[in-house]
Amino acid sequence: MPTLKQLLVGRPLETGEIQEQKLSKKAALAVMASDNLSSNAYATEEMLLALVTAGAVSLTLSIPAAFMIVGLLWIVITSYGQTIKAYPTGGGAYTVAKENLGINPALVAGAALLIDYVLTVAVSVSAGIAAITSAVPSLYDQRVGLSVLAIAVVMLANLRGVRESAAVFAGPVYLFIGCAYLLAIGSLVRYYFGAEVPRVEAVPAQTVEPLAGLLLLRAFAGGCTALTGIEAVANGVQAFKEPVTHNATIILYTLGVILATLFLAITLAAHLFGLVPLETETILSQLGRLTFGTGPVYYLIQITTMAILILAANTSFTGFPRLSSIIAKDRFLPRQFAHLGDRLVFSNGILFLGLAAGALVVVFNADVHALIPLYMVGVFLSFSLSQSGMVIHWLRERTPGYHWRIALNAIGAVTTAVVLFIVAAVKFTQGAWLILLAIPAIVLMFRKIRQHYFQVSSELSVASYDRVRDLRHTVVVPVPGINRASLGALEYARSISPDVIAVHVNVDGEDPERLTSQWEFWVEDVPLVVLNSPYRAVLRPLLRFIDEVETFRNDDVVTVLLPEFVPAHWWQRILHNQHGLILRGALSFKPKVVVTSVRRHLQR
Amino acid sequence: MPTLKQLLVGRPLETGEIQEQKLSKKAALAVMASDNLSSNAYATEEMLLALVTAGAVSLTLSIPAAFMIVGLLWIVITSYGQTIKAYPTGGGAYTVAKENLGINPALVAGAALLIDYVLTVAVSVSAGIAAITSAVPSLYDQRVGLSVLAIAVVMLANLRGVRESAAVFAGPVYLFIGCAYLLAIGSLVRYYFGAEVPRVEAVPAQTVEPLAGLLLLRAFAGGCTALTGIEAVANGVQAFKEPVTHNATIILYTLGVILATLFLAITLAAHLFGLVPLETETILSQLGRLTFGTGPVYYLIQITTMAILILAANTSFTGFPRLSSIIAKDRFLPRQFAHLGDRLVFSNGILFLGLAAGALVVVFNADVHALIPLYMVGVFLSFSLSQSGMVIHWLRERTPGYHWRIALNAIGAVTTAVVLFIVAAVKFTQGAWLILLAIPAIVLMFRKIRQHYFQVSSELSVASYDRVRDLRHTVVVPVPGINRASLGALEYARSISPDVIAVHVNVDGEDPERLTSQWEFWVEDVPLVVLNSPYRAVLRPLLRFIDEVETFRNDDVVTVLLPEFVPAHWWQRILHNQHGLILRGALSFKPKVVVTSVRRHLQR
Repeated sequence: MPTLKQLLVGRPLETGEIQEQKLSKKAALAVMASDNLSSNAYATEEMLLALVTAGAVSLTLSIPAAFMIVGLLWIVITSYGQTIKAYPTGGGAYTVAKENLGINPALVAGAALLIDYVLTVAVSVSAGIAAITSAVPSLYDQRVGLSVLAIAVVMLANLRGVRESAAVFAGPVYLFIGCAYLLAIGSLVRYYFGAEVPRVEAVPAQTVEPLAGLLLLRAFAGGCTALTGIEAVANGVQAFKEPVTHNATIILYTLGVILATLFLAITLAAHLFGLVPLETETILSQLGRLTFGTGPVYYLIQITTMAILILAANTSFTGFPRLSSIIAKDRFLPRQFAHLGDRLVFSNGILFLGLAAGALVVVFNADVHALIPLYMVGVFLSFSLSQSGMVIHWLRERTPGYHWRIALNAIGAVTTAVVLFIVAAVKFTQGAWLILLAIPAIVLMFRKIRQHYFQVSSELSVASYDRVRDLRHTVVVPVPGINRASLGALEYARSISPDVIAVHVNVDGEDPERLTSQWEFWVEDVPLVVLNSPYRAVLRPLLRFIDEVETFRNDDVVTVLLPEFVPAHWWQRILHNQHGLILRGALSFKPKVVVTSVRRHLQR
Repeated sequence: MPTLKQLLVGRPLETGEIQEQKLSKKAALAVMASDNLSSNAYATEEMLLALVTAGAVSLTLSIPAAFMIVGLLWIVITSYGQTIKAYPTGGGAYTVAKENLGINPALVAGAALLIDYVLTVAVSVSAGIAAITSAVPSLYDQRVGLSVLAIAVVMLANLRGVRESAAVFAGPVYLFIGCAYLLAIGSLVRYYFGAEVPRVEAVPAQTVEPLAGLLLLRAFAGGCTALTGIEAVANGVQAFKEPVTHNATIILYTLGVILATLFLAITLAAHLFGLVPLETETILSQLGRLTFGTGPVYYLIQITTMAILILAANTSFTGFPRLSSIIAKDRFLPRQFAHLGDRLVFSNGILFLGLAAGALVVVFNADVHALIPLYMVGVFLSFSLSQSGMVIHWLRERTPGYHWRIALNAIGAVTTAVVLFIVAAVKFTQGAWLILLAIPAIVLMFRKIRQHYFQVSSELSVASYDRVRDLRHTVVVPVPGINRASLGALEYARSISPDVIAVHVNVDGEDPERLTSQWEFWVEDVPLVVLNSPYRAVLRPLLRFIDEVETFRNDDVVTVLLPEFVPAHWWQRILHNQHGLILRGALSFKPKVVVTSVRRHLQR
């Protein structure tokens, strides 16, 4: 019979069954593109949202902002092209920073990346559900529940292990790329050749002059979200078929071209149609309805948009557990994150990610716009640290042509650092402050955890230990009276030490004679001490007695043996006093006392 | 340094310090009257509430209903006068029913009484706070919080022990009696001699004719709440000075006269002024304002009303713990209720009562009118069982004149049984059904508890036990590796048995050679078994191994010794695996396995 766990996550897998699956270029694009390309679902909208508060007229700034973002994309991609060459085994920001910049920058990058994995899940799933609620507005009120459900499904799939991933990814990703181009080109065609669509009048440039610089920065900061996920290729180099570097580079640039063209086309189309962000309908949905009407093509676009966004969330479920296991192996996270679960996946990391992302979705009401400001700081912080690490890398390696490689990565590092300051400043009050507080807090936690493990292992070290010694110990058995439980405990006590003392606390003012005479009949070779308790307390006299035994005997250990009985049903426990439990708690702080329960299991 | 508990409830008291305090008649009236007399604060109002839905005109029925209730009061008092004679040591319904009717009626009476103690607290405190919020309407929204606070204060006072009670009671009770007469007489004087007060026109009798019978029953059922607490004198006979029976009887009749006159006068005055129950102001408060204006006399009436109601709640804090300890000594309730706490009070009963009443007040929003329907069923059920028991008592005793004693108690029993059916029927849908379900449920619980204790003591009985035997046992020590914790555990293991096996689960596919060679250096005389775990599980292989040891060794006991270390701070626990805890849980169901932790306490 499979257990519930086995039904949900599948049978255990042997350690030997682990295998790296090598990906063809087509498969690799599918697996690595979803996180990045899916940002097309909300990047244009974030730009427009940043502009719309300044009036519809300023929306025209989305065009220059989009071109700035594509420029930035080119710089980032060129920089990551270098990383692929230098780290053919996978160059995540944590690894690159650790090897080149030292442990503190690496921890900052690690904290930023872990946060971003959580946010990728929260943002992607919320945006995916927004694609659905745009098409079916009656579901809008259920968006939080639907988002949590989607996270739960993805989490469960990952707990089973998602080795089939390339096969699962290819369909939706290529379908989405196709649909997105169809939408972008279709809407432009419709605008220029269609008849009845609304057109925006040309706006004289000077109208937006006074605030234009600041507004442009805001639009730029909002749209930068298009770049999220671009680092996936550099992180996953080792998954490519040979020649690894060559194939990965081709995919990186292909991804860049697709992203840039889609992003520009969608932004242009949204501008031409004069679209304005709405609370209950996404820009992509508005564009789809205007271009194709609310028909099968429109629904296909919405469904593939949701699908690629869910897949984007799914990539975090591989990335987060993998990174947290690397960090845990460096002892900066609880060791539970380092262990492979019985399905050969890092189950604890997957569970943690699912719960954290679910919590974010609930707190932020599955609102993409509210989550985005938290997202950007971590992304650009890890971009910048990664590129800075590459500068140091080339300085050390001095491979042929290292000068221009340094220049490329330095441009990448500085540009992303500047963007980091822009997004932190622009989005500060909208939530970026939270991340600016969280990152140092997490770094501090990393260091505390490592320090603790270090102390434990030094305190447990056997370096200065003598050989195993012989111990002397006394056994104290508190007995409430003469019954099977206490006689059982006394039998056990006699078997582990020749030195046993039984102790009874007399609370009810009963006659001690009765007990002692019975005692002699049942257990002649164990002395019984009767403690009178005028205040009816049971525990205090016992604890005092154990202290005295400890002091006067001066043995290595005092063993306290508690005779207990276990009722047949859990609810019956409340019918009995919990003295054993409380005594165990009180004694747990004494280093030289061992507490043992000898249990008698009742049948009914 | 006193602990927090000592600051709140005082120093522990010796068992010898317990003493029954004997009360003079004056003191006894004060102590025993509060529960009963305080019902004047809401009884008239409950009658009017039952009538007001049928229109203001039907309010005139409150006068005949009040006379019916006074008649019932006379019957009940006469019946209880008999109980005082028969049970000079205190004749609560549980005791009387148990001795005369058998255990099942006694358990029904016990359940009814326990419920009513809880309701007395909830109703009295809610009514007491209503007296205050009537005077200061701005506090109305805080009534639930204030009620809970009042319950907490009374509970704390009782946990300290309220030996000073007579002294505390006398002032407020006599002040309340004075104030209540002042109000009753004052308002009648004001009505007949005052000028500007509104007067109700005489209503032609036929107007209410069609429904009159039913309405009268409803008013009667509501007003019966005036009788609650009348049994206190019979329960507390042993507290009187000699001649006990004589003194108690005098107080019982005095109480009856005071109650009857106050109740009739207040009901008459309310009727004459045409008062109608309001949500935010009590009838007593309305009457006070009309008679004396909103001045010092009015405020004095409200404050003394609140005071006597809080005292009424306080009487339950003596009655409930005392009754539950009697029932617990009969083994029908958890034994924790039977023990005197260190202040010589039954602390568990006091805590339970406080929490239960607090919960009721919160659930019912401190609304007296919502609580009353729950109240009456238990009251009249215990009245009727108590009186029926008295009938049997006289039949057995056959003391001189037992015929007319039987007649008196039989009238009492039948009358209260009839009233029981009336209140159960009239109040059924308003909440009485809850109590009609709760009483059998509690009786069932009583019986289950007793059955459990009986089984435990028979299973623990040493009747068929051999003398204490010598046990053989094997010790199994699971070791994660060689460190101070595992070496410490091994030292302990060797000291309690010559038969020790260490066992290691190899999860990471590490080389077992390294461990075994180290092992030989540190612990030469304990064999080490290495279990390979291809699925990376730690616990399953260990449990299987322990099972095998149990089967093959066939010893009396297998001791599993867990080497554990205790981090210096609690939060550090989450940084370590909880294998010890889980193993302990999994092994706790095996009768022949003893699990012990040998702990190493870390310093930092």
